[in-house]
Amino acid sequence: MGVSQSPSDPSVAAALAGLDADLGELTGLYQDLHAHPELSFAEHRTAAEIVRRAEAYGYDVTPGVGRTGVVAVLDNGEGPTVLLRADCDALPVVERTGLSYASRTDGVMHACGHDLHVTCLLGALKLLADARDSWRGRIVAVFQPAEEAGQGAQAMVDDGLFERFGTPDVVLGQHVAPFPADMVACHAGAAFAATDSLKIVMYGKGAHGSRPETSVDPVVMAAATVMRLQTVVSREVPAGETAVLTVGSLRAGTVGNIIPDEAELGLNIRTYTEDVRARILAAIERIVRGEAQVAGAEREPEITALDAFPVVVNEEAAVARTMAAIGTVLGDGKVIDPGPVTGSEDVGILGTAAKAPLCYWLFGGCDPETYAAAAAAGTLHRDIPSNHSPRFAPVAEPAITTGVTAMTAAALEWLGGGEAE
Amino acid sequence: MGVSQSPSDPSVAAALAGLDADLGELTGLYQDLHAHPELSFAEHRTAAEIVRRAEAYGYDVTPGVGRTGVVAVLDNGEGPTVLLRADCDALPVVERTGLSYASRTDGVMHACGHDLHVTCLLGALKLLADARDSWRGRIVAVFQPAEEAGQGAQAMVDDGLFERFGTPDVVLGQHVAPFPADMVACHAGAAFAATDSLKIVMYGKGAHGSRPETSVDPVVMAAATVMRLQTVVSREVPAGETAVLTVGSLRAGTVGNIIPDEAELGLNIRTYTEDVRARILAAIERIVRGEAQVAGAEREPEITALDAFPVVVNEEAAVARTMAAIGTVLGDGKVIDPGPVTGSEDVGILGTAAKAPLCYWLFGGCDPETYAAAAAAGTLHRDIPSNHSPRFAPVAEPAITTGVTAMTAAALEWLGGGEAE
Amino acid sequence: MGVSQSPSDPSVAAALAGLDADLGELTGLYQDLHAHPELSFAEHRTAAEIVRRAEAYGYDVTPGVGRTGVVAVLDNGEGPTVLLRADCDALPVVERTGLSYASRTDGVMHACGHDLHVTCLLGALKLLADARDSWRGRIVAVFQPAEEAGQGAQAMVDDGLFERFGTPDVVLGQHVAPFPADMVACHAGAAFAATDSLKIVMYGKGAHGSRPETSVDPVVMAAATVMRLQTVVSREVPAGETAVLTVGSLRAGTVGNIIPDEAELGLNIRTYTEDVRARILAAIERIVRGEAQVAGAEREPEITALDAFPVVVNEEAAVARTMAAIGTVLGDGKVIDPGPVTGSEDVGILGTAAKAPLCYWLFGGCDPETYAAAAAAGTLHRDIPSNHSPRFAPVAEPAITTGVTAMTAAALEWLGGGEAE
Amino acid sequence: MGVSQSPSDPSVAAALAGLDADLGELTGLYQDLHAHPELSFAEHRTAAEIVRRAEAYGYDVTPGVGRTGVVAVLDNGEGPTVLLRADCDALPVVERTGLSYASRTDGVMHACGHDLHVTCLLGALKLLADARDSWRGRIVAVFQPAEEAGQGAQAMVDDGLFERFGTPDVVLGQHVAPFPADMVACHAGAAFAATDSLKIVMYGKGAHGSRPETSVDPVVMAAATVMRLQTVVSREVPAGETAVLTVGSLRAGTVGNIIPDEAELGLNIRTYTEDVRARILAAIERIVRGEAQVAGAEREPEITALDAFPVVVNEEAAVARTMAAIGTVLGDGKVIDPGPVTGSEDVGILGTAAKAPLCYWLFGGCDPETYAAAAAAGTLHRDIPSNHSPRFAPVAEPAITTGVTAMTAAALEWLGGGEAE
Repeated sequence: MGVSQSPSDPSVAAALAGLDADLGELTGLYQDLHAHPELSFAEHRTAAEIVRRAEAYGYDVTPGVGRTGVVAVLDNGEGPTVLLRADCDALPVVERTGLSYASRTDGVMHACGHDLHVTCLLGALKLLADARDSWRGRIVAVFQPAEEAGQGAQAMVDDGLFERFGTPDVVLGQHVAPFPADMVACHAGAAFAATDSLKIVMYGKGAHGSRPETSVDPVVMAAATVMRLQTVVSREVPAGETAVLTVGSLRAGTVGNIIPDEAELGLNIRTYTEDVRARILAAIERIVRGEAQVAGAEREPEITALDAFPVVVNEEAAVARTMAAIGTVLGDGKVIDPGPVTGSEDVGILGTAAKAPLCYWLFGGCDPETYAAAAAAGTLHRDIPSNHSPRFAPVAEPAITTGVTAMTAAALEWLGGGEAE
Repeated sequence: MGVSQSPSDPSVAAALAGLDADLGELTGLYQDLHAHPELSFAEHRTAAEIVRRAEAYGYDVTPGVGRTGVVAVLDNGEGPTVLLRADCDALPVVERTGLSYASRTDGVMHACGHDLHVTCLLGALKLLADARDSWRGRIVAVFQPAEEAGQGAQAMVDDGLFERFGTPDVVLGQHVAPFPADMVACHAGAAFAATDSLKIVMYGKGAHGSRPETSVDPVVMAAATVMRLQTVVSREVPAGETAVLTVGSLRAGTVGNIIPDEAELGLNIRTYTEDVRARILAAIERIVRGEAQVAGAEREPEITALDAFPVVVNEEAAVARTMAAIGTVLGDGKVIDPGPVTGSEDVGILGTAAKAPLCYWLFGGCDPETYAAAAAAGTLHRDIPSNHSPRFAPVAEPAITTGVTAMTAAALEWLGGGEAE
Repeated sequence: MGVSQSPSDPSVAAALAGLDADLGELTGLYQDLHAHPELSFAEHRTAAEIVRRAEAYGYDVTPGVGRTGVVAVLDNGEGPTVLLRADCDALPVVERTGLSYASRTDGVMHACGHDLHVTCLLGALKLLADARDSWRGRIVAVFQPAEEAGQGAQAMVDDGLFERFGTPDVVLGQHVAPFPADMVACHAGAAFAATDSLKIVMYGKGAHGSRPETSVDPVVMAAATVMRLQTVVSREVPAGETAVLTVGSLRAGTVGNIIPDEAELGLNIRTYTEDVRARILAAIERIVRGEAQVAGAEREPEITALDAFPVVVNEEAAVARTMAAIGTVLGDGKVIDPGPVTGSEDVGILGTAAKAPLCYWLFGGCDPETYAAAAAAGTLHRDIPSNHSPRFAPVAEPAITTGVTAMTAAALEWLGGGEAE
Repeated sequence: MGVSQSPSDPSVAAALAGLDADLGELTGLYQDLHAHPELSFAEHRTAAEIVRRAEAYGYDVTPGVGRTGVVAVLDNGEGPTVLLRADCDALPVVERTGLSYASRTDGVMHACGHDLHVTCLLGALKLLADARDSWRGRIVAVFQPAEEAGQGAQAMVDDGLFERFGTPDVVLGQHVAPFPADMVACHAGAAFAATDSLKIVMYGKGAHGSRPETSVDPVVMAAATVMRLQTVVSREVPAGETAVLTVGSLRAGTVGNIIPDEAELGLNIRTYTEDVRARILAAIERIVRGEAQVAGAEREPEITALDAFPVVVNEEAAVARTMAAIGTVLGDGKVIDPGPVTGSEDVGILGTAAKAPLCYWLFGGCDPETYAAAAAAGTLHRDIPSNHSPRFAPVAEPAITTGVTAMTAAALEWLGGGEAE
């Protein structure tokens, strides 16, 4: 591993100096990506844009890794291999931001800010390429598909990511979140929750809407199940444990006068320990099967596990070193510890598979003044849309500056110093 | 009004004699219509088939009445004008009958038997045309669109049905129902319920599935509303009154890890009196608005009235006369009074608009032996799918024979006797 | 059977002439009984009052029949035996009428008007005794205990009611109800519903209120069960059938910070046919057992049948004859047919056990003007408290006049005419 | 403040040496107190027993402090004042332990172990009196009433506790909990949750059970409210926060066939921050008032705050010092940090009012072998009853030994050393 950049290393400042000139271009890129969101494993236009730009910066670019993933490598002499990761996919959400550059694809939206992740990593790649005299080693930039489906990281690993492009000494990545856009947040240890997604189909028996007595009504069955599922967190999880159970979708029937045959529920569960996870999954199964019995259903419900993200564990030393480097350039008080958050991520798979330390941080997406006003008014939970909301809309600035700066400073921290060798 | 056919009138027997020879053709027609269902106001293929056949029988046929409706007229000397009505549209149901002639159109199904209504009316039109020597008057056969939407009868009236084709002396029609296929059922007075269909949109506030505290969860709001709506019939309608409130559809969200912005419910209400109807509609509004407040929703729910069928009232004397005629040909014990039923129909609009007496009856669609076995086993409500079920499948025989016979005998009863002139 | 009194029989008018003079006394009796309500099989003070008065009128009185019941007999020559019945017990209701003569016993109230039934039967007994010259036969006045528990009629039959006091030729009785107090209502056939009362204990597992994860919360289990029980009537009973399922009591726990071990529910079911009754009882068992499974309860719920009233069937001819007699004295339009009502009664047991025709009617308890005003305003269901309400308060007049008149006229109709002998 | 006892101080061992001889007596006391539980502010028999014994040990005893509290003082030369606290009251729970010394008072039970607290403090007072040569200072033993009502500590403070008996240098106390009875657990900082208890009365409108349409059913209203209250923790509290909302009691109606006028709910809320507490209290009010509107209630629900315990904050240095002293006598590994617990206590009021550091710890009440077996089988939450359960039954031994030892060692640690002066 190379010599660490000192906090006041002039080479970091020099590398970042070019950012101002790039900001117009990067903002345009961000808005273009936002207007053209693509679902998991369908990030074709996004990948083409990444390829075009990374090649222009001088990287060796390989598309199609893990289906729609892209890997961009810059070899720059002997030194550490640093993996920089951004995820690329959007969500099946109907955008309601009212932005001029809102999604042009019906029902698809960059509601989780991956457009910003791609923009900031590309911005950092350009700065790092321009500053190649000041560092030694190998940058492996990973533009990952299908994070929302929990499948992209594993798909890239399975497609030979480390065999083909080298095993990294550290895995670095970042995610935008609803706090002031001039700040960065990172928690050592269990930082992001484990997630399980379930699809549940409950089978009733359809009939004409006027003859419920000949039916087993799946709408009522599903509604009762949703209400009873609320008791899993309220009654079965110890208060000191952290857990979330969300029924994000419920779909049954097409019109009022036909009692349908079935109802479909989409569940999402967040946990931090295997004990709590197991208890919740068991409670869901008990409740769903029991509610079908209560309803007099003749056919058992089907519970299908869709995807599962493990807990993301940030290595303590890697967090300390990376946050110190970022704090030096962002300034005092701009790096905080948010504690564990309930979001989930498959970035942990990259670190685990590579047996490399992981440092995965958050950067803000809210206009600092707007945020401060809402905080003062006590209306944060009403005024600041969270990720996956149809109104989630990170501001371009200072979010892009913060994201590019943090990623560049973190990468330089872990790459070998140019002069020192 | 012409001279009534006597119960043992040999001319009725003569008219029906030709049915046996037609049965193969009619069964093929039924299966073809079943395989090609069309939604309300989109009955183009069905209408073309009706036109082709009715013209071949010698009727004067006008398509495009009330958008996709068809009127076929046979003028046969001075005498009463008799309106014979069949409805033509199918439903947005995914068929699960497993029949060889099941729907070839995804998500559309003749789940209410209108295919059989069209088949039987065409069968009767042929017999009546062939028997034109034995009656005098004018047959106005109305093939109505969009009954399921509650809009077709009104559309035809509004398009000049009576001005263009004559005001009838009686309105006759029939509907298949889940009882033995060799039987007919008719109730004088309030025979079919009034129906109101409502679309309700409840507005929450979307968020990432892991951060429910920043959301107003519309899935929970909708589920609680569905549970509370059950109390309208169980607590607020006097036990001696007849009423049904069905939530036939509930749609919210797309995936488990996104709390959506809103939920949409489709409701259907059946009542027999304006008092009960008004109380139920008021209770629904109170519950829906109240549940939004309970949830802390910032935006009021929207309740939209989609369609409304009035109560269908059969005229007492018309029922007595028509059922007597049908009973004569079907045999003893084959005509019953089912009491009021909870299904709804817009056929009543034709009678009301024409100021003519209405007689609208049910004929069976179940194999008589299968029905008797289920009745003996006490499993009727489990084994016999009702209308609108994805498994609703009237048997071709003896249902077609019964339907053609009933319609023909009823028409001859009301037309003028041939000999009398 | 004796000769029927003619509608204009002057002897009826003569018998009733004495009522005016008794009204003050009867009103005082009514208020005294109201102030001293007694629960089922504890009607000791009430029985003593009955004994004292009936003996004073000249009846042969036997207390302690069927525990706390009283029988008063007047033998008056050869003729029919007519059973006149009143029930005597009160309810465990906290009175909220605000009356000056409200209950002086905490938590017990004459909320069903049995105080009025006793008053009116005593009033009739006095008139009948005074008019003994005008009739022949035998009056068996039955003051029945424990009607609310559904046990008193059977207890009196089991205690030899008919063996000891004679088998009646007809059973007559009346009940006050919330309609104008100058009217009487009677329905021939199935007039009052069958009732089943159930006690259900659901077993959870208690814990400190702060540690729900160590509990199985019976409060949540019971609440979910109450909500799901609403679907029995709303989804499982055909709309044309009449049925009521009420959870009248729910008791669990004592304070907020202790999760209790169990919850107890009191259910009451009203039906008119055995089919519907069986389906509802099966649905309750399915739901209660299923909800315990949903909750993860380790112990099965206990469902105990407390009491069951059969359907009360009024004999058609007896109703016609009795109502004609009452109508003659009350005047045109004062006798109506209310259709079947959902209340229940064990009076039917007396008729069935005696194999005698039954005529059991309702008389009004509301001030006619107040009732008319509420009817005009459409606020009947809000302004007129029904039986069992803590605010149920029949007006003394004209309710006592109507009740005494109806009972006296009915009795004279069935007793033998005095002149005829 | 006196000189601290060294870990191996022989005077502590000497003081504890007498415990073995007292154990029989103390076990008898424990069983006698358990058999005679008394509710909050009714601890008369318990207080008399305390007075009798403490005087026998040589303490200066004052009963009636804060209504039923007792203060026992031992002045022993110049030195620190150490407050030792035990709470005395029992709970309205029907005992189901099956113990030979189970409660002889129907519906009252020492289900929270206060009997053990009293026993252990009396045991320690005797040892400390016997060992008075080895320490200097002043013991103020506080036997507090009405802890379960959250009112006893404040009542004693308000009654001049510190003015009359001296302001302590430290407040020490202990509580039994469901872990192995040879262990002690203590958490520095926010150790016990804040608690709010609410009584909620929801007003419907009573009616006969057969006529729900004339009622506003409070049983359904309460059940729906209980279900919706589950969403406060499951949807409105951030997953990383600790909060509990329990509906511990729900009482409505008396029998199945009367729809009652109202329902009463008992709620208990546990929180660790004022933000979360405020959000939960607001959500409860919103839900309760909204559910009344949904039900069509004519009268607003009443929400009454019954009691409120603040968060208990253990002072860090006091915890370190006290636990070190206890660990020395109990042995390695017998003192653990359980983290914050969701139980609540009013002991914090004593420390806050005295402006003295507080150290409040837990000691175990489970047979160590039974506990280990349940832990190994993964059945702890099923087999080990928690506080407030009707089956909560701490074992006398080794719980009394642990409790007396811990309290004695802690007191000696804070009192001045005898020899040292």
